Amino acid sequence: MWTTDTVAQALLPLVGDRGLLQGSDMASYEQGARYGHGKALCVVRPANVQEVQAVVRWCATHHIALVPQGANTGLVGSSTPDDSATQVVLSTSRLRNVCEVDAANRSVTVDAGITLQELNEKLEPHGLWFPIDLGANPSVGGMVAANTGGTRLIRYGDVRHNLLALQTVLLNPQGELLDMGRALRKDNTGPDLKQLFVGTSGAGAIITRATLEVHRKPQQSATALVVPTSDEAVLQLLQALERDLGDYLSAFEGLSGHAMQAAIDHVPNLRNPFAPEPAPDFAILIELEAASSKAYTGLDLQDTLNLFLQDQFEQTIDNAVIGNGHELWHLRHSISEGARALGKPIAFDVSVPRSRIMDFCRAARAVVAQDFPFLHVVDFGHIADGGVHFNVIWRSDASKAYDPAVVSALRDRIYAMVVQDFAGSFSAEHGVGPHNVAYYRQYTPPPARRLAQGLRQLMDPQQLCGTVDFGDSSAAV
Amino acid sequence: MWTTDTVAQALLPLVGDRGLLQGSDMASYEQGARYGHGKALCVVRPANVQEVQAVVRWCATHHIALVPQGANTGLVGSSTPDDSATQVVLSTSRLRNVCEVDAANRSVTVDAGITLQELNEKLEPHGLWFPIDLGANPSVGGMVAANTGGTRLIRYGDVRHNLLALQTVLLNPQGELLDMGRALRKDNTGPDLKQLFVGTSGAGAIITRATLEVHRKPQQSATALVVPTSDEAVLQLLQALERDLGDYLSAFEGLSGHAMQAAIDHVPNLRNPFAPEPAPDFAILIELEAASSKAYTGLDLQDTLNLFLQDQFEQTIDNAVIGNGHELWHLRHSISEGARALGKPIAFDVSVPRSRIMDFCRAARAVVAQDFPFLHVVDFGHIADGGVHFNVIWRSDASKAYDPAVVSALRDRIYAMVVQDFAGSFSAEHGVGPHNVAYYRQYTPPPARRLAQGLRQLMDPQQLCGTVDFGDSSAAV
Repeated sequence: MWTTDTVAQALLPLVGDRGLLQGSDMASYEQGARYGHGKALCVVRPANVQEVQAVVRWCATHHIALVPQGANTGLVGSSTPDDSATQVVLSTSRLRNVCEVDAANRSVTVDAGITLQELNEKLEPHGLWFPIDLGANPSVGGMVAANTGGTRLIRYGDVRHNLLALQTVLLNPQGELLDMGRALRKDNTGPDLKQLFVGTSGAGAIITRATLEVHRKPQQSATALVVPTSDEAVLQLLQALERDLGDYLSAFEGLSGHAMQAAIDHVPNLRNPFAPEPAPDFAILIELEAASSKAYTGLDLQDTLNLFLQDQFEQTIDNAVIGNGHELWHLRHSISEGARALGKPIAFDVSVPRSRIMDFCRAARAVVAQDFPFLHVVDFGHIADGGVHFNVIWRSDASKAYDPAVVSALRDRIYAMVVQDFAGSFSAEHGVGPHNVAYYRQYTPPPARRLAQGLRQLMDPQQLCGTVDFGDSSAAV
Repeated sequence: MWTTDTVAQALLPLVGDRGLLQGSDMASYEQGARYGHGKALCVVRPANVQEVQAVVRWCATHHIALVPQGANTGLVGSSTPDDSATQVVLSTSRLRNVCEVDAANRSVTVDAGITLQELNEKLEPHGLWFPIDLGANPSVGGMVAANTGGTRLIRYGDVRHNLLALQTVLLNPQGELLDMGRALRKDNTGPDLKQLFVGTSGAGAIITRATLEVHRKPQQSATALVVPTSDEAVLQLLQALERDLGDYLSAFEGLSGHAMQAAIDHVPNLRNPFAPEPAPDFAILIELEAASSKAYTGLDLQDTLNLFLQDQFEQTIDNAVIGNGHELWHLRHSISEGARALGKPIAFDVSVPRSRIMDFCRAARAVVAQDFPFLHVVDFGHIADGGVHFNVIWRSDASKAYDPAVVSALRDRIYAMVVQDFAGSFSAEHGVGPHNVAYYRQYTPPPARRLAQGLRQLMDPQQLCGTVDFGDSSAAV
């Protein structure tokens, strides 16, 4: 049995003093971003790819499990160790030597430990950005492992859509380096192996470097917060927007009244944009972006959006607050904080075909109202891509005391609705980790489970890497 | 040893009279679109997924190889049998029952045998299209197997970018059905298994159905054929376009003087757009598209492009022919036909980072001029995505007689330049088939080859399906 001391003694020569953490120095690496925590054997922080290879070689040879960790911003528990104190956390936080921009190719090659914010700072002087927008600052390696989506997916796609090449260290005693793809937009030379490491929560290999397609930073944007006339009008409005202004649509976010109210009530310096009227039952944050400059197009994007909205008045919308994008996005991004102030959140990161998203939300709210009337729904989501954060709060002042069995029953019920009744996904953009792997086992069809089992056997037969075993044979039907 | 008679006798009850072809009825299924032909044991044309399963079950049980074939438009020989008369061609041409449009979700679920043109006819009434544009009418299943790219990739991506779900029949004696993904834009629930079947030339499983994201059909477009002031100016022009009009750019195609001249000289009813001047040494076909209507934006796309070009005059461009998109695209799409009229084409479908594309073309032309002066280069390509059809013609009137050994030496030389000197791909959009698999073996690094070998062992241990063995163990270093 390995102890922290013996493992640390073996790893120290591989990564040096700064590369090894023990004891209380490990605390932030053992704590999940929002939920859960564990206990690591030790934390290694390799400073370059060669050090990653050395650590993998040693761990693969001695059958020591590795938990890859980027900026540790994930929400499904996949970047923190379990409580067994038998896993080594491999943090990529020092893996940040390379960040090479090829402006004419609109691509960047970047080490896994560079964060999204750092990447965007590096791209800024070139008029470029990596446009995936979310309420956190993950590392690039973590974004690949999570296949991050965010609020502007409808315009730019997820990480998978923007990944040109990937480098990983394979989980064999050779710690072999695998380079997949190049800085190319067209390359069809056999199976696209890098896809095996995208959206798998760190399973399969250690991600060390990625080449990403990047985009022109918009020179104009326009925003509005609009109140639809009905649930049916929401999809009509979205379709009209795509028809008339589809080149510019970058976000179409749904905010329930409860969600807005939670933010307004509990987040400092946030005002109700509809004041003196109360927040409506439902509103949509519309954002348009134009990479193109007004100089050539003559197009004022905010004026254009306003004209469109005028035309929609009384057809699909009742009211609108226009402009001031910063304030409107601040409201949108404050919902999670506001919801947490109300009590314990029970988060559902789900998606359905967007043609059914309003029906799903209505049906799910009805289930809570009828069978869990002591709970409070704070839902919001990315309507244009079918994603819903159907979050439910067990308020501090609820009529019933917090009960994990009820939470579990609610989770079973909502996920069953999503997957079985609405042809949806039980994890839209947060991925699968220890927190929700039971639903992977429940809802993945047997042939897919068997194929995943074969992949795990191929890539990581000892199940050394990551926190989820997609090939768990006990689960294969 | 199975004969056509004994196999046909076994398969006939599974697919019926209309589903089985023998003898001379097989001719068009044995002939490659442009190059190569083989000899099939028989051709089966299942009419639905159940019939595909029955055929796979029988073939997997009796170890009979299957060659899946869509519309048979591929260019690397991957959809036609070899000349052994031991393979059954499984044509998806009757697999065309389902074509379900969900307009509000902007998605369509479609059987593998439906062609691109049929799909677009079905989408038209909804104001939608599947915007992948190429000089052929492939089946949807074939497009997935080839990961088709085409001329508008820079705006819409390739098939992989637009694939939401995939159904395949696995190559086991159960002929098991594997459904992967749903009509969702955000769905991160474990390994994305459908990626294993995209761009693999029919290896791994029989593709039976796909769900695709589709797009709003543009309401405006604008075109121009421009002459750059220099090679360096080409990338400057592209970057300026993306900066000033990036929301609209849908094509940026390079046409060499030889390419234009071949089309003008040999394709009926095609005129030189620069007449009375001769065709220039190099020109770029620019296309802009706006999904958005002029009604809301006030934007006339052709006027906008013209203003941009005025501004570029003497900076990056010398001359421009504007408007008449139909005529300009006809010139672009006639190059292959024109080139074939000159003699035997030696095709190179390659890509490099677009920042190096003009350098690559110059260097490759110099190699031909110096070491193969009797050959004639007819290059054109997709500059914005780094793709080049660096085609070389062995003219009928060449000073040296056609010599396969010289062709082989040229292929080795050009591919080595692309892959080793320019960090490029030896097959940008045509994929890998029997015609070019030798370069897959040569240029795929050993760890990637071993992983591909493991995948093949997992998905098709008998190597029953397709015409390329990406896991060829004789090739694994």
